[in-house]
Amino acid sequence: MEIRIMKEIMEGNDKLAGENRKFFEDNNITAVNIMASPGAGKTSLIMNIIGILKDQKKISVIEGDIASSIDAEKIEKEGITALQINTGGGCHLDANVIKLSVEDLALQKDTLLFIENVGNLICPSAFDLGETLKMVIASVPEGHDKPFKYISMFEAADVIVLSKKDLLPYIDFDKEAFYKGIRAVNQKAPVFEISSKTGEGVKELVDWLVEG
Amino acid sequence: MEIRIMKEIMEGNDKLAGENRKFFEDNNITAVNIMASPGAGKTSLIMNIIGILKDQKKISVIEGDIASSIDAEKIEKEGITALQINTGGGCHLDANVIKLSVEDLALQKDTLLFIENVGNLICPSAFDLGETLKMVIASVPEGHDKPFKYISMFEAADVIVLSKKDLLPYIDFDKEAFYKGIRAVNQKAPVFEISSKTGEGVKELVDWLVEG
Repeated sequence: MEIRIMKEIMEGNDKLAGENRKFFEDNNITAVNIMASPGAGKTSLIMNIIGILKDQKKISVIEGDIASSIDAEKIEKEGITALQINTGGGCHLDANVIKLSVEDLALQKDTLLFIENVGNLICPSAFDLGETLKMVIASVPEGHDKPFKYISMFEAADVIVLSKKDLLPYIDFDKEAFYKGIRAVNQKAPVFEISSKTGEGVKELVDWLVEG
Repeated sequence: MEIRIMKEIMEGNDKLAGENRKFFEDNNITAVNIMASPGAGKTSLIMNIIGILKDQKKISVIEGDIASSIDAEKIEKEGITALQINTGGGCHLDANVIKLSVEDLALQKDTLLFIENVGNLICPSAFDLGETLKMVIASVPEGHDKPFKYISMFEAADVIVLSKKDLLPYIDFDKEAFYKGIRAVNQKAPVFEISSKTGEGVKELVDWLVEG
């Protein structure tokens, strides 16, 4: 019985995700679903990208969190519309909440939409939102073994970001092992090494996002 | 219908948790349920505590992960029995898996049992394992806003650890805001600031664990 209900939830989600995907394609909207652990630097990266792109590109942000509106408030200070979703305990966003959010935001054509998923490396990868790209961020202080432990997440990624590279001198992080873990499950996704604190590497990621 | 099934799962879990709790009490076993984000330093802290206590205390470890046996292998190198649980996608341990693990480990009286839960700040707090103590670890690089976002986790904690304090000089971490977030939802849990890298603060935490 539980299995059947789960299957119905997933089928319902996939149908709505398909509708979102069509809407994004029809309106040339690039929707980036950003997934990462708590504190990996999702909001900081979005703010860095906004800093680079806001004069040349329409940008909107959907912020997913269990509780609080801390992140949406940060984004709005940059002069960008942000919608905060509180899941009230739920560990991921789903296609329905994205559909409703997209309607609320009244998104224009050619927008770059960042969807910051709820902070964890587990549940979000199972739910298709209809996004254009899945971005997974792993931060240096989390350690190089994360791709070996959170396989579905790294497998699902279209682009992977190694964040907080400014902390490399202070942490035992084996970069070779990190890449080995990624390539064991994902041969295609490009990996960008960045620091939102110093700005290093963010421009290269932005170029890839805009050109892709 | 979904709600009813969820209620049954929780009731089943609570019954088994009660049995675990009785077993721990009857055998003077201190079972510490350790919950944190991926890479917050759960395994490193356990290894530090083992280093301090292994000559004076029986210690066992249950390692919960989505996949891999990296953590149990690390612990076994310290000469301590560790049982690795792979949840295969599940974002938390439950009372049943702990009951089976405790049987497998054939735990002796007076053991200190560390249960390293699956790495995330969401699902694990909802499942009673019958543990003696819930320990929540938050690491400095995750940022000071975590208690405001993952309320249930910090609310449920019997003891809170701020880890990786050696990184404080390199990160914008507002300690006052962090404590404010904790105290808004949890007035009782002691907070220990530690570094598993330098060993700072670990002894104080160990003393509290042993005396408590």
